Amino acid sequence: MSDSPSSDLAARILDTDRRALARAITLVESTRPDHREQATALLTELAGHGRQALRIGLSGTPGVGKSTFIESFGTLLADKGLKIAVLAVDPSSARTGGSILGDKTRMERLSRNPNAFIRPSPSQSHLGGVARRTREAVALCEAAGFDVVLIETVGVGQSETVVAELSDVFALLLAPAGGDELQGVKRGIMEAADLIVVNKADGDLKATATRTCADYAGALRLLRKRPQDAPGFPKAMTASALNEEGLANVWQQITDLADWRKANGFWQSRRDEQARHWFREEVKQALLAGLDRPAARAKMAELAEKVARGETAAAAAARAMIAALPDLRESLDDGVNSA
Amino acid sequence: MSDSPSSDLAARILDTDRRALARAITLVESTRPDHREQATALLTELAGHGRQALRIGLSGTPGVGKSTFIESFGTLLADKGLKIAVLAVDPSSARTGGSILGDKTRMERLSRNPNAFIRPSPSQSHLGGVARRTREAVALCEAAGFDVVLIETVGVGQSETVVAELSDVFALLLAPAGGDELQGVKRGIMEAADLIVVNKADGDLKATATRTCADYAGALRLLRKRPQDAPGFPKAMTASALNEEGLANVWQQITDLADWRKANGFWQSRRDEQARHWFREEVKQALLAGLDRPAARAKMAELAEKVARGETAAAAAARAMIAALPDLRESLDDGVNSA
Repeated sequence: MSDSPSSDLAARILDTDRRALARAITLVESTRPDHREQATALLTELAGHGRQALRIGLSGTPGVGKSTFIESFGTLLADKGLKIAVLAVDPSSARTGGSILGDKTRMERLSRNPNAFIRPSPSQSHLGGVARRTREAVALCEAAGFDVVLIETVGVGQSETVVAELSDVFALLLAPAGGDELQGVKRGIMEAADLIVVNKADGDLKATATRTCADYAGALRLLRKRPQDAPGFPKAMTASALNEEGLANVWQQITDLADWRKANGFWQSRRDEQARHWFREEVKQALLAGLDRPAARAKMAELAEKVARGETAAAAAARAMIAALPDLRESLDDGVNSA
Repeated sequence: MSDSPSSDLAARILDTDRRALARAITLVESTRPDHREQATALLTELAGHGRQALRIGLSGTPGVGKSTFIESFGTLLADKGLKIAVLAVDPSSARTGGSILGDKTRMERLSRNPNAFIRPSPSQSHLGGVARRTREAVALCEAAGFDVVLIETVGVGQSETVVAELSDVFALLLAPAGGDELQGVKRGIMEAADLIVVNKADGDLKATATRTCADYAGALRLLRKRPQDAPGFPKAMTASALNEEGLANVWQQITDLADWRKANGFWQSRRDEQARHWFREEVKQALLAGLDRPAARAKMAELAEKVARGETAAAAAARAMIAALPDLRESLDDGVNSA
């Protein structure tokens, strides 16, 4: 090993050092150019370590009992001897003042478990940045030898799409709901779900949970089958995180699906596809970043209004925008360049 | 009016000349650079004419009776004295040998109606190109004074997303289906639907159609309400294009929804948002076109494989790609530049 800072950090991460992992995640979360530089060097050094975790994506809106679920489910896995990392994708945490941080203190039992590593969501509201940070944090957790990486999101904006594109198996957590108080699954989210888990199937809500589960099972059957769907999947089931019921079944379903995908070639092909997807996204974002600079944004907004008012055709406005771009870049680089 | 070719064409289109409209659509369908130039000039000249049609998006897979539906529904509107244009978005038509062209000859009654204008899908398989062509064709039909523009798609790939982004009201056409032969609505398409119409509610299939309609009405209730949803929408209903039953109701629902949106400000705000969306798409596509050139594609593929194999981190590969882009462009411009 060389003695560059990132080399040392890489060696310690591969040696499953938790503090090194935490420091590395802080590095990939930073937007400072020199930190980005170091983060890229670290990830490059760690590329090809060959360790794979089972990446589980979990989406659930506030009120479905997500932290209780993660606490109980995570403890179940940790007690089996599995090393589990919990990461959060929460583009809203900047606004809500970091609700996930609160969750960490609520997940007291799990956070004390030596097999568990919980990382709260950073205060960053740009989804593109959150996606990259989380993807890189997942890579770091895999390098640090975790068996399971649970990536959770509150499903604000498109964050569940990000989580689905980061995970091997994607689960949607719902609360029981009667006819009049349907929770309204965001349109399109069922597209990504491998499992729907109706939580809080306990006490007075048990019957409602069973009915909600049947409703969603019906809705899932109306959707087209994907090649990566094992027989019987996507599937809806009930669970009670509070009473720790149904969690072993959720784990069983996840591993059954993961095993089936491994046996049928969909596991690796999905990962390869995701890697290509994220690489393309990185390139596109770097290319489109030129449109995000203040001068370019102002010009875009001005032209967009002309198009909306019918004063100019979109094709002509786009041509004008592309033509103006190099000038906007130059005037910016001369002046307020503070990336 | 000046006597440039596009000016003359513009004047004739505004004068509702059908042959001029057909010629203009052929122009926007062309990928020849000089034709693109003329098309952009024509659209710029026509911008701001102030005419608006009701744009209805219609998606339905083969077998749901889509051409019979358009024939009957279009005739109903044409007989009311409404001028109706039918456009198709079918990225697969290049492959299937132009099934929509076949549809035109099957829509014999409608195509003979003086109030109707039917334009088959061009043989173009690139969805981005199809989207632009259709958007520009819609603009031309509006300039030519049509009251209703029906934009239909077989829902291959993401074409129904394109159609939804082009329409004021989006309808999904389905066939009756029993438990075992569920047709599988593509995941995410319900996201865009304002209406679900279960066609073929006639003869032996009538009971099944009613049941299918109830199933989808239930599934729609499980989705989150959008601001632009009038009370009771999105809605599922049955119809029989064959017996011309339920079509007046479909029209009533569409106009009710359109009126509600106009009264509540969602009509124009949606159009403005769509105009901005398409403008941004034009700019992005122009910017990303650099990645589509052969030399850039080869480099992208090479780096993507390295990322997928874990040999390099996505961030590092993206940086390498951006750095290589100007060289790839230059070497291309020197050589095989044949856009």
